[in-house]
Amino acid sequence: MNIPFNVPPSVAFQNGHFTAENVVKKVTRSGDLVGIFHDHAAWQAIPAQTPFYEVEMLDSPQGEGELYVGATHLHPGRVGDEFYMTRGHFHHRREQGEVYMGLRGQGLLLLQNERGEARLENVSPGSVHIIPGFTAHRLINTGTDILSALAVWPTMAGHDYAALAQGFALRVVLQEGKIQAKEVQNG
Amino acid sequence: MNIPFNVPPSVAFQNGHFTAENVVKKVTRSGDLVGIFHDHAAWQAIPAQTPFYEVEMLDSPQGEGELYVGATHLHPGRVGDEFYMTRGHFHHRREQGEVYMGLRGQGLLLLQNERGEARLENVSPGSVHIIPGFTAHRLINTGTDILSALAVWPTMAGHDYAALAQGFALRVVLQEGKIQAKEVQNG
Repeated sequence: MNIPFNVPPSVAFQNGHFTAENVVKKVTRSGDLVGIFHDHAAWQAIPAQTPFYEVEMLDSPQGEGELYVGATHLHPGRVGDEFYMTRGHFHHRREQGEVYMGLRGQGLLLLQNERGEARLENVSPGSVHIIPGFTAHRLINTGTDILSALAVWPTMAGHDYAALAQGFALRVVLQEGKIQAKEVQNG
Repeated sequence: MNIPFNVPPSVAFQNGHFTAENVVKKVTRSGDLVGIFHDHAAWQAIPAQTPFYEVEMLDSPQGEGELYVGATHLHPGRVGDEFYMTRGHFHHRREQGEVYMGLRGQGLLLLQNERGEARLENVSPGSVHIIPGFTAHRLINTGTDILSALAVWPTMAGHDYAALAQGFALRVVLQEGKIQAKEVQNG
């Protein structure tokens, strides 16, 4: 009996693109990001169809304990003085964590717990981010290249965007030529 | 207020080594692998202190839903005609899955479900292995370099080696100059 050596999916570590029979892709555009950026006029000036980020995901079995593998590709740019970023979310199943790994570009991972305490981690190729449960997470592209990060997370985690309706406690902006994190003035 | 950009751990994708404040390392040696290889005499001829593989792990919070990040470095070699391999295990929490990614070297991932059905996936730099729950897993180094694979798995998964006391249903050997998978004759 000839036992086959199966070819699994693969990822290019230099850019986070997958090769697999089925890769699900989802594009998030400017028009999808209502109320995310603090400069509303600058956001409105960007055509609604402008892609801000793409997520690629591999097929996974569904169920308690199963894991997804995906990658986020966040374009560089600013809305006013604020760097492009993902919407960010808590997991619906709050206790479920996630792992991010930087693959391409330069940016920040904004983490925030349920008490609203925020912190930032540098994202760069090879950076490893162990996101605990009960922690919202958002990627911010502070560089000039696409920011790509690999992610592994439980298939049952789900997303909860509504819990962040008041936004994150920090914004990352370019002011006086410097990348700066600013505390949000209860906006 | 000066908000810091924290430096997270990092991984070198070319070899799976971590840079972090705390990296736990565990070495598994020939003498730890009693009864794993089918050629007992060939195994006995190898000094018990010979390292077969090392596992590196980053710190993670502990709890339901939290995730570990680690890397396995499996040396090249054979015990008789059988390639060096890890012990392999089911998770104690059977439903918990795992993700492996090949980083360095060439090998195989042996997967086996609870009915004893086994399959093999090629492991090479960039290969992505979504290991479902209820599935035992073992790395096999069929190359000449160290086989390094990154892994992400739930901190609550645990290990169950005893459930594999009868071993896996396949062995990978070099016979007639070829890498071949053989069904185990109920050994």
